[in-house]
Amino acid sequence: MKAYKDMSREELLQLKSVLEDLYKEFKGRGLSLDMSRGKPSAEQLDLSMGMMDVLDCFTDLRCEVGIDCRNYGVMDGVPEAKRLLGELIEVPADNIIIYGNSSLNVMFDVVSHAYTHGVMGMTPWCKQENVKFLCPVPGYDRHFAITEYFGIDMINVPMLEDGPDMDMIEKLVSENDTIKGIWCVPKYSNPQGITYSDETVRRFANLKPAAKDFRIFWDNAYNVHHLYAEPRDIILEILNECEKAGNPDMVYKFSSTSKISFPGSGVAAISASQANLADLKKRLKVSTIGHDKLNQLRHVRYFKSINGIMKQMEKHAAIMRPKFEAVIDMLEKELGGLEIGSWIKPHGGYFISFDSLDGCAKKIVRLAKEAGVVMTDAGATYPYGKDPHDSNIRIAPSFPPINELITAMELFILCVKLVSVEKILEMK
Amino acid sequence: MKAYKDMSREELLQLKSVLEDLYKEFKGRGLSLDMSRGKPSAEQLDLSMGMMDVLDCFTDLRCEVGIDCRNYGVMDGVPEAKRLLGELIEVPADNIIIYGNSSLNVMFDVVSHAYTHGVMGMTPWCKQENVKFLCPVPGYDRHFAITEYFGIDMINVPMLEDGPDMDMIEKLVSENDTIKGIWCVPKYSNPQGITYSDETVRRFANLKPAAKDFRIFWDNAYNVHHLYAEPRDIILEILNECEKAGNPDMVYKFSSTSKISFPGSGVAAISASQANLADLKKRLKVSTIGHDKLNQLRHVRYFKSINGIMKQMEKHAAIMRPKFEAVIDMLEKELGGLEIGSWIKPHGGYFISFDSLDGCAKKIVRLAKEAGVVMTDAGATYPYGKDPHDSNIRIAPSFPPINELITAMELFILCVKLVSVEKILEMK
Repeated sequence: MKAYKDMSREELLQLKSVLEDLYKEFKGRGLSLDMSRGKPSAEQLDLSMGMMDVLDCFTDLRCEVGIDCRNYGVMDGVPEAKRLLGELIEVPADNIIIYGNSSLNVMFDVVSHAYTHGVMGMTPWCKQENVKFLCPVPGYDRHFAITEYFGIDMINVPMLEDGPDMDMIEKLVSENDTIKGIWCVPKYSNPQGITYSDETVRRFANLKPAAKDFRIFWDNAYNVHHLYAEPRDIILEILNECEKAGNPDMVYKFSSTSKISFPGSGVAAISASQANLADLKKRLKVSTIGHDKLNQLRHVRYFKSINGIMKQMEKHAAIMRPKFEAVIDMLEKELGGLEIGSWIKPHGGYFISFDSLDGCAKKIVRLAKEAGVVMTDAGATYPYGKDPHDSNIRIAPSFPPINELITAMELFILCVKLVSVEKILEMK
Repeated sequence: MKAYKDMSREELLQLKSVLEDLYKEFKGRGLSLDMSRGKPSAEQLDLSMGMMDVLDCFTDLRCEVGIDCRNYGVMDGVPEAKRLLGELIEVPADNIIIYGNSSLNVMFDVVSHAYTHGVMGMTPWCKQENVKFLCPVPGYDRHFAITEYFGIDMINVPMLEDGPDMDMIEKLVSENDTIKGIWCVPKYSNPQGITYSDETVRRFANLKPAAKDFRIFWDNAYNVHHLYAEPRDIILEILNECEKAGNPDMVYKFSSTSKISFPGSGVAAISASQANLADLKKRLKVSTIGHDKLNQLRHVRYFKSINGIMKQMEKHAAIMRPKFEAVIDMLEKELGGLEIGSWIKPHGGYFISFDSLDGCAKKIVRLAKEAGVVMTDAGATYPYGKDPHDSNIRIAPSFPPINELITAMELFILCVKLVSVEKILEMK
């Protein structure tokens, strides 16, 4: 393949004309496809239908310590659910609080807590000036939306091959006591699928923040969401590393069963040091009488143990793998050597991150949309929706059936080519 | 019966001695009974066991507009659940947002919203000085805990026979722009079982608050929780009355199925004007991807309509009624004419409110506890746990089986007599 940048103006104009014809043809097909969100497909949801039968009208709905799970109470989760989530999150059951159906909601609540009441009794963020968060980019739009909602300034930190730029993070957090947190998706990151190296995790655990109320928001959303038996990424357990580094209170770790069982009806949890959990429980005691314990039981009795969860994840992978491979294969085949875009082949997670030529992402997404394929908005992977290079696009292959995914990718690739040709022509 | 205050010192001393012997005997029985919280009994929870079977692995889990309820999405609830909750809450489905399993959590979240972001874009309460709430007393401890948590000053307003003292409320809210809200349980109030009269509701709807961000927090927790087919209390619908009065945005109304189906696993909702709902949705959009839609479906397909709910409530009433009547009968039989306490016979709800002689409640509850019967802490029905008369005690008859309830009440009445005799002796 000849790189576009090496083509002559004439070659490019001719190519543009061919691509425009193809695009028009696509537009005429009246497509309506969605590659925008990291939602499991119906086929994946079918994997958990057995969960609907696990509790019935004859089931003893008491948990293992005899508490009637139908009634009020139990603020932090029934013991067997804390144990199961503990296995999933890789921390002792004692270091867990189980919440409702949404780990995003737990993150929101923890930021809200820090904002109104302060972390572990320190000055509330709403009473401090210029509170800031570090945001590895590209990252997860819903994380950035939470900090934006609370008026917290966000500072971009570039993602490197093995995690965010730790030199920059170490410098910033040690020099600025207004930096209160950082959003991390440490494994199969959203959107790049990057897994933090052991060194990155250790450097996180050994941070020396100027702010005593600095916390790492460690959203381990994809811990067991492997695509392959091999290669399969492993990361160091952050609570343990923080404790070893003498920073036991520096991290909140978030997890849920959303993409294991049902995204709308899973079980979410936080894990942290005892001091952090005690701090959060003061709030929980006021904010609820307890979360849905029947749904906790349903999960425990269906999955039984981490082995049950891992078996389920293999079935998810069997559905996800061909979709990811189709996307990667098409990108390689259609764009390889053209030097108009780059991408990372992930070992797990829910996304493939694509970087176009600078200044092209918004237009690519717009053209795709106008021809009937919805992608995540360009810019969404950056705080305030502002990608300084206008180049990152998040591809979410999970939801559409594979035939639709292939059609959507054909259009996407066409849009990448068309916009890139126009861009290079502008510069010639 | 001779009133204690009319007894001679000798009579009282003799009575005291008899009561002390009885108390000692009770103490020797090693009781462990709980009348502290408004929890349904196991027998009541059994009424909803059919709900565990209503969704199974063969069920179509799409809602009526075709959305797959297993997946992410639908911020404000599936249409059929909004309709069912609308019937329960007596407002159009369009005026509802469905949340998770806890209406208390919704109230917490709404106060938190006003605190951090302000009501409908007005100045956040955290940026205002001396924010205050009115608290009809006696009232619900968990309401008061929320406002206390956010540092909101609470002002007691006495409950009268047909609701809180509206003269006082009208005067306070019209004269003080620091008064931002009032906690109300308008029907079968917690703990007195008082239902607001039509006049009270209309006066609420016609309030002229000095603060534009004043809101009535209308916790209609016991709307269908009648004890009898007749008498059965009815209240005016507050959203409608507020709209008629030209105050459409002045009220948040809260409700849940907690004491209809399962308290830990019900469905909670808020209803309010479109302007208020739009304001809350701005927060919801950031704080969650959606609540548990499968549990919404479970409720809709089990109850089907308000008729299904009303039938269920009749069954609850059949279990609750004998317990309430046992408590009332024992109070009347044992304390009638003694002039050492008063109580109200409610037509519904979860509590019986008892008022002892001034300065006796804490001691009564302590003595009962020392002999093995846990009551709600004396003072809990007042903000900051401070009952200025130290007289109000909340009796929660729902949870214990009736034989245990009767034993617990025997002890409670004994404690009331003993502490009252001591009190009157002190004053003689």
